[in-house]
Amino acid sequence: MYACGIDIGGTKIAGGLVSERGEVVQRLELPTTASDVGSIVAAVIDLVEQLGSEGVISTVGVGAAALINRHRDRVFFAPNVAWSDFPLKAVLEEKLGRLVHLDNDANAAGWAEFQFGAARGASSMLMLTMGTGVGGAIIDDGRLLAGGFGSAGELGHIVIEPGGRLCGCGNHGCLEQYASGTALMREARERLENPGLSPEALAGLLAQGHEDALGALTVVSDAMGRGITSLVAVTDPDIVVIGGGLAAAGSLLTDLIEKSFATHYGPHARRPVPKIVAASLGNTAGVVGAADLARRSSEHNGA
Amino acid sequence: MYACGIDIGGTKIAGGLVSERGEVVQRLELPTTASDVGSIVAAVIDLVEQLGSEGVISTVGVGAAALINRHRDRVFFAPNVAWSDFPLKAVLEEKLGRLVHLDNDANAAGWAEFQFGAARGASSMLMLTMGTGVGGAIIDDGRLLAGGFGSAGELGHIVIEPGGRLCGCGNHGCLEQYASGTALMREARERLENPGLSPEALAGLLAQGHEDALGALTVVSDAMGRGITSLVAVTDPDIVVIGGGLAAAGSLLTDLIEKSFATHYGPHARRPVPKIVAASLGNTAGVVGAADLARRSSEHNGA
Repeated sequence: MYACGIDIGGTKIAGGLVSERGEVVQRLELPTTASDVGSIVAAVIDLVEQLGSEGVISTVGVGAAALINRHRDRVFFAPNVAWSDFPLKAVLEEKLGRLVHLDNDANAAGWAEFQFGAARGASSMLMLTMGTGVGGAIIDDGRLLAGGFGSAGELGHIVIEPGGRLCGCGNHGCLEQYASGTALMREARERLENPGLSPEALAGLLAQGHEDALGALTVVSDAMGRGITSLVAVTDPDIVVIGGGLAAAGSLLTDLIEKSFATHYGPHARRPVPKIVAASLGNTAGVVGAADLARRSSEHNGA
Repeated sequence: MYACGIDIGGTKIAGGLVSERGEVVQRLELPTTASDVGSIVAAVIDLVEQLGSEGVISTVGVGAAALINRHRDRVFFAPNVAWSDFPLKAVLEEKLGRLVHLDNDANAAGWAEFQFGAARGASSMLMLTMGTGVGGAIIDDGRLLAGGFGSAGELGHIVIEPGGRLCGCGNHGCLEQYASGTALMREARERLENPGLSPEALAGLLAQGHEDALGALTVVSDAMGRGITSLVAVTDPDIVVIGGGLAAAGSLLTDLIEKSFATHYGPHARRPVPKIVAASLGNTAGVVGAADLARRSSEHNGA
């Protein structure tokens, strides 16, 4: 039997049937209407029903781009979706007639990379996603860090520039203001004096080795490397995985981040330096991780 | 029966008999010769033997001011003691003829505050010690974070001032350069134009409300509050405990830290603000925590 993984983002919902080995055997996608919680719930039900019947699906896991409470049953807040302290787990379980496992989308994606992707074989991992913002997940001794309120791993909100750029969280100088995909586009548009530059065009320039494009990537990578220096002191991972849209740049990106990290981590560090690698599961990581977390949760509960 | 806790610091070794409820029923202390590993081992054996025989002591826990490896059996490195990748657990077990549990001293002290002290009743905790340097311990869902190499919780080495003061770790701008007891003394001596000012004299001035003394404490507390802002984004604790020598200043200190934290954490934070409190077990925390970790470990192993 397969586990069903659902990944609820700001603009679309993806669903997939996932094997025990993390393979996606079927995948579907629906657009979301962010302002309407009811339509999101209906879309999730629709996706699960399209993907398979009870004999095919053993369990359902949902990852959502939102703050999930510590008990992993309510969506407390999301920047892009209109729910507020919404009992998503209970609502889905009632409509689907089966157990649902709920987690944050970055945690789900991180778990997938840890089990089946770039961090396979490690015991502890830090994942940072470089996209619209900077998200994250922390795994220590094979276990996802949850936090007291349920929101551990908000890695984009460590401060790397005191008194720096104002962040959406209300603080100044947060990592995501300097090391997100958004920050990269801002930096590249300035350097290239091209306010209309698209991410695709930038990717093309990077592939050609364009000097200003590389300069922008270097600045953003330096910020990420500095952030990782602090994060490694806190959680001491075996490996650091870079995910999100920018991970498509692969070793071009991770080599620059590693260089910055090595410069700041310093020659006097007393323990081995963790590897810094690009995520390997692309945009299926959320679906795979949500499914696998659900499978483990249902096995743990003896279901 | 009691568990025996041993706390190996840079200048002394403390040992105690500790009840299941965390009470220290007997306590002893010996000076250490930091350069001589053999004398430290002999002192630990001596302390355990003085504290009780096999019928009195069920298990022995050791906390050391050092990097302990992930398997918790070797001392990898210590800034103040001359051991290097030393198999302390095996050496002590052979000489004592019983199981020994080994951990970092900040982890042991943090565990004691979590079980019996200022963080009792919480499920997740951040502890920061303000002493010679800044140390730390992280507990999530009732479990100490270990890290891939065994050195999670080096909280004094997050960067709060990019390009700032050179730290002993080789990086610049680390938290412990701004928020340790050492940083407080430097700041106070400068403000009071008194290079010979002692910690005791400073404590007296703080108690009298001396303006420059309070100014120095405010600067150091502000740095700590800013550091906590980043750390809360990473680990999301229920409560933050301030330990180490400066914790003796109690709410005078924690109120200032809380004020700085509230300023930087910002009005847009979407989750409840964790409490910031002073440690309550003083300098017995290391002994109590080492003993309790050993008791739990031996129960877990069915001994």
